[in-house]
Amino acid sequence: MSDLPKHVVMIEVGPRDGLQIEPRILTTDEKVKIVDALADCGIKQIEVGSFVNPKAVPQMADTNEVFDRLEKRPGIRYRALWLNPKGLERALANGHVDMDGKLTLTASETFVKRNTNRSIDETFEQMPAWIETYRKAGIETDTLGVMAAFGCNFEGYIPEEKVISLIARAKQIMADEGCTLRNLSLADTMGWGSPGQMKSLVGKVRDKWPELVLKLHLHDTRGCAVANAVAAMEMGVAEFDASVGGLGGCPFAGHKGAAGNVCTEDLVFACGEMGINTGIDLDALVEAAKMTEEMVGHVLPGKVMKGGTLTRWKQQHA
Amino acid sequence: MSDLPKHVVMIEVGPRDGLQIEPRILTTDEKVKIVDALADCGIKQIEVGSFVNPKAVPQMADTNEVFDRLEKRPGIRYRALWLNPKGLERALANGHVDMDGKLTLTASETFVKRNTNRSIDETFEQMPAWIETYRKAGIETDTLGVMAAFGCNFEGYIPEEKVISLIARAKQIMADEGCTLRNLSLADTMGWGSPGQMKSLVGKVRDKWPELVLKLHLHDTRGCAVANAVAAMEMGVAEFDASVGGLGGCPFAGHKGAAGNVCTEDLVFACGEMGINTGIDLDALVEAAKMTEEMVGHVLPGKVMKGGTLTRWKQQHA
Repeated sequence: MSDLPKHVVMIEVGPRDGLQIEPRILTTDEKVKIVDALADCGIKQIEVGSFVNPKAVPQMADTNEVFDRLEKRPGIRYRALWLNPKGLERALANGHVDMDGKLTLTASETFVKRNTNRSIDETFEQMPAWIETYRKAGIETDTLGVMAAFGCNFEGYIPEEKVISLIARAKQIMADEGCTLRNLSLADTMGWGSPGQMKSLVGKVRDKWPELVLKLHLHDTRGCAVANAVAAMEMGVAEFDASVGGLGGCPFAGHKGAAGNVCTEDLVFACGEMGINTGIDLDALVEAAKMTEEMVGHVLPGKVMKGGTLTRWKQQHA
Repeated sequence: MSDLPKHVVMIEVGPRDGLQIEPRILTTDEKVKIVDALADCGIKQIEVGSFVNPKAVPQMADTNEVFDRLEKRPGIRYRALWLNPKGLERALANGHVDMDGKLTLTASETFVKRNTNRSIDETFEQMPAWIETYRKAGIETDTLGVMAAFGCNFEGYIPEEKVISLIARAKQIMADEGCTLRNLSLADTMGWGSPGQMKSLVGKVRDKWPELVLKLHLHDTRGCAVANAVAAMEMGVAEFDASVGGLGGCPFAGHKGAAGNVCTEDLVFACGEMGINTGIDLDALVEAAKMTEEMVGHVLPGKVMKGGTLTRWKQQHA
């Protein structure tokens, strides 16, 4: 395990990726409470909400208000998601969002059409305009996210060469526009990945672009999320999206097939046991998960919140 | 991942380790149905039940009847658990149990006293009598199980040197009695293990006794079970206890902290995605998990049974 990072960064996405599929729409107050509790645990990056169509995603309709009400703490990035220029404008107008210059593409033609009503080619064609919009707002475009990078429920397994060539094409567009790709997020949007796939694709990306900072966005659809994260860590990956309590996985909510992101506290636990520092207070995080569970009103899939941390034993052995 | 085995054996323990903590006691008919369904999937070893005190574990009171009713199929081992000579006698008397010559010890002094009312020393002292009893029944003693090999809720982390020295002592006792230790099962009884611990302890055991066939018994108490299995597979381990649907993990049953074994179908899925053969029909196994879920009357923690297999996509890519 020689490539294991010494420090791993958790990007908490529960308030956005998790809550957006919850049948019960939380109040703005509750959302602020969750974000504050997560910040109290030592989490340094939190995806607070999304600026998307409130008719399509009513759970995120008050993202503006959540940002307005948050008392931002120093050293923490409060991030958001947007999918079109209008969403970006709303995020900019809010004034409290820590902005990312991020481009997103999807490795599946069918899924990108269903999700964004654009083809992969059209996604590329719009990239220069995105970069220009970011530039006007004073934001450097340096980040690329690839959705469905491992597999797609509509198209099947995604060939690695396809992912590599999509990244190369986006990187070139960025270079043509005077930007440098620094951060790459590979998203297993529909939970297709296995530890072998993680090692293989991450290995190919690292071979080709060793300078990129890699992040993985994993869903626990088929029970491999923690194993996938560990496999990626063994390949040197040190940034992960994760959701408190495994929020987003809700077998009782009519989303039978959907599953949440890798559970933040389960991944923090695994890191801690392997000597990897996350800077996160696991016991406090478990309390945040329990509070969130109470708010959404059903059992969350997180395991450590039920099985208990080993903090007190670790201290005895330290 | 060069040490990954080409073939992994699943020992299905759901009917025993899973059902023994279920609040609803299944009928003998239902148990037979589950075991038959598991056999239909291609699982070759099934722990059908246990010959223990029916007052202590009423869920297993009809193990005798389950064995009587089963129509055993060729090529499948129908195993059972016993903890004392009386239980062994009952298993022998049944006549349908595929017997194992197995000794069990526990790496935690506190836990072994609570669980078996014996000390670790007393466990060792009784081993020659166990071997003799097995011999009289025509069974060769060749297997050792170490419970709580990674950590214990009463004692904390278990030092690896302690586990190694316990194995060495048992191995010597077996040798003194003319037996050879061939199979070693390391049990993470209370779900303390992490991928790092797996690699470390398995590595030390393999270095010392490369001739032993290793099996892991993992619980998903803290969400690491699949990751732990993958880590062990990377160290060459090719046998795992597992329970259908992740049976045994029941957040609604008043066993808040307890969690089931690693979920059979989730592990079979992970193996399949990494090119490891299990000989198990994953789609049939998911149906068996759903049937079991209906019988126990609450949602099981297994993920693939909710997220779906990728079998049809694999066939397209084959």
